[in-house]
Parts: sequence; structure tokens; C-alpha cells
Amino acid sequence: MRKVEICFSPELIHLHSLEGKIVVVVDIFRATSTMISALANGISEIRTFADLEECRSMKEQGYLIAGERNGLTAPGFEMGNSPVAYLNGKHQGRKLAMTTTNGTLAISKSVEADEILIGAFPNLSATVQYLQSKGKDVLIHCAGWKGMFNLEDSLYAGALVKSLESSHEPSEDGSLAMKSLFEKEGHDLKGFLSQASHAKRLQNHNIDSDIDFCLTLDLFSLIGKMEGENLVAQEI
Amino acid sequence: MRKVEICFSPELIHLHSLEGKIVVVVDIFRATSTMISALANGISEIRTFADLEECRSMKEQGYLIAGERNGLTAPGFEMGNSPVAYLNGKHQGRKLAMTTTNGTLAISKSVEADEILIGAFPNLSATVQYLQSKGKDVLIHCAGWKGMFNLEDSLYAGALVKSLESSHEPSEDGSLAMKSLFEKEGHDLKGFLSQASHAKRLQNHNIDSDIDFCLTLDLFSLIGKMEGENLVAQEI
Repeated sequence: MRKVEICFSPELIHLHSLEGKIVVVVDIFRATSTMISALANGISEIRTFADLEECRSMKEQGYLIAGERNGLTAPGFEMGNSPVAYLNGKHQGRKLAMTTTNGTLAISKSVEADEILIGAFPNLSATVQYLQSKGKDVLIHCAGWKGMFNLEDSLYAGALVKSLESSHEPSEDGSLAMKSLFEKEGHDLKGFLSQASHAKRLQNHNIDSDIDFCLTLDLFSLIGKMEGENLVAQEI
Repeated sequence: MRKVEICFSPELIHLHSLEGKIVVVVDIFRATSTMISALANGISEIRTFADLEECRSMKEQGYLIAGERNGLTAPGFEMGNSPVAYLNGKHQGRKLAMTTTNGTLAISKSVEADEILIGAFPNLSATVQYLQSKGKDVLIHCAGWKGMFNLEDSLYAGALVKSLESSHEPSEDGSLAMKSLFEKEGHDLKGFLSQASHAKRLQNHNIDSDIDFCLTLDLFSLIGKMEGENLVAQEI
């Protein structure tokens, strides 16, 4: 059996060894869900930026630019952080430059891993299939919320641990806890998450359709994978 | 309603505000369980030390000295970190100096709080009663394991959040998650925890009776409370 572990926050990633592992970075509301939606709807590659201005400057190089701060589209950006904004297929073939509050930080802190995937509910099974075909240890790196434990990322992590149970065993307490929590709450993710602090913040932005999208399983049969500085799709 | 929140590791405590709150420090296996057992069995006060040598030097001042490193009694110390070692009442009236791997660190990082309590399953209801009588916001500070999320501390936190639900509501995602996890696993804590990494380590030290003690509810009707540098008992 291979091992699977969870890191609940980029603030704790220094406690984990990344070497030889595949890291799955997850920021369910909404960065990594948006990335998967963009890739599944024709975006050819995505570059992520921690810095808003650096991301904005990519427009000059022909990139579609997407920026969000605290849940809203950042001033001067074409796209915010809504996964459903890509479903119309209008942006096929474009390169996307994207910055977010928490997700980009988690990606940049995962570079020592063998591979970095981007995790989201809409491509959970494809990610599971890819991880099982690779047969390496897995670390699920939750972007969290301003450094703190975050319910939606942790529940995705629990779902992934549960889905990997035939090939990967939990190597620390966090993955045991989240697997059990997903077993209890997984049948009604939206109901359970409606109590969460971040979900409450998102409700204030009137993005109920985003939340529904982010919690829907297996819409797409592709994975999102970092290739150098670019996030690209790979069909499964 | 007052608020209750969980910090899963001393490495994350800087993200929380402690001002005006009562912090409950918890290190179930075994530091805080041992402290509560010692206080309930006649130890008059406890001083905690992060540094082993500093703790050892307290012997010269008449203290009983207890020291543990990685689950074993530290060389030259009279007591290890076993809660059942106090049950014979042999140490009545003694002052105790104690150092542990994780628990002492969590206490030292909680000093900005209004009050610091020590949490353990054997005095859970007494702690709940005290917190409800005070009517302040509560932060549960899990000592964790070498900075990481730890199952037994987190489950205690979930039990405390659950027990406080008539007076305190979860103010962040961690307390929602652990309340739900405790609802699912609380009926068989020992069975669930037997999968945990730390419990496995403890089994290697043949301390099954310690584990049973640490997971037993409401043996004592006192709280453990920091008064300056000393931990003392207060009957409820």
C-alpha cells in the first residue's frame, strides 16, 4: 500500500516531506474548481500568480487574465474566480493567467514534489484514476483560508482519501479524521458546508451556482497537472 | 451566543486572537490528562516547562519532577507522563514540575488569553460547567504532534464544542468539522483512535491503562487553571 496524507494549510507544509510524492493542491471555493473548469472548457494552459500586478501584466502577452481578492473580481481583470464563467466555451484556445488568495500560495509551496495536480470535485474520479496508475505516495495540500483549516478543502481531502483506500492508506491523523468526516457528511456536502464560514462569505456574493458547480462530482474526465510553470490538462 | 473555535496546532496559534478569551489547552496523550489526574489526586500545584533541564532543576526546590520525551520517562526524572501513576495518592501535597513534548509549548503560546484552562476527558463536564458560568468566548488550543493535526486532541475539541452547543456556537470551520466527527466517532473513541499514528506509538510503550484513563469521561469534578505560572485545581 502507498501512503496518503493531508496538510491542512500552507502554513504547515514545512512539517511535511514532499520528495517523491504527488501533491494534490485543493482550493474548492473556488480557485482549483475554476482551473479545472477552464481546462475542461478549452483553456490551453494556466499560469498562476501570487502577485496581483504580475498577473495583470500577463495581458500584454495575450493571456486572458483572471484575478480575485476576497471573493470578488479584482479591478481591471477580465475574469474573476467563477468556474461557471468558462462553461460557454468563449475562451477556447486562450492561455489563462490567474491569481487567487490562497490557492496560488499552496501551489508555490508544493514545488518540491515529484508532481503537482490540481484537485476539485468535478474531476475527482479522474484524479483518483491517475494517482492509482502512478502508484506514488500522495499528499493533499489544502489551501485553507488565510492559513487556517477550511471545511470544503478538508472534505475534498477526505473524499480523496476515501476514494484511494484500495491503494493508499492514511499515514497521519488528518487523513483518518477527514475520511471519517466525509463518510458522515459526504451525502449532503452542500447542507453541511452551508454552516461553514467561507460558504457564508460566498453566499454574500450571490454565487450559489458557483457553489453548486464546485460541489458536483465527476463532470470531467481530465486531470489538471503542473508542467513547469504551466497548468495543463491531461485526458484520463 | 458566545463563540468557540479550535486551533489545531501551536504552529497556527498566531492566526487566532486570544484577547478576551478563555483558552483550553489540550494534549490528551498524555500531558493534560496527567495534569488533571495529578491535581485530582492531591498535587497542590504544577509548573510546566518547555525545557527539560530547567524542569529537572526544580527538584532542588522540593518539587516532584516529571519529564517525558517521545513517550518515555526522561533520564533522571521521578515521574514520566503517566496519569495513572498519581492514582495511589502517594504524592499528596507535593508541588509538581513537569515538562512534555507538545503540551507545554501550547500553554506557553496561550499566555495572551484572559484565562488558560487545561483540558482532558476525565474532567470534561467540569470544564464545560466552568466555561458556561464565565460566558466568555472559548478557544481550544490543541497541542498536536510535532506541529501537526492530532486525532485525540481534535476529538476532545469536538467533544467540548458539542458540549458547549447551548451556549457557544462554532466561529470557524475547524469546530464545525470536529463537532461532526465527534458525533460520529464519540461512541467508540478508543476503537477509532486505535488507528491513529500517536496511539500506535503509545501502544509500543505498553501503556494501555494510560490510554483507557485518558479517554474516560468525568472522573473528576475539578478544573485545571493557570494562575500566573502555576496550574492549580478549582473544585466545580
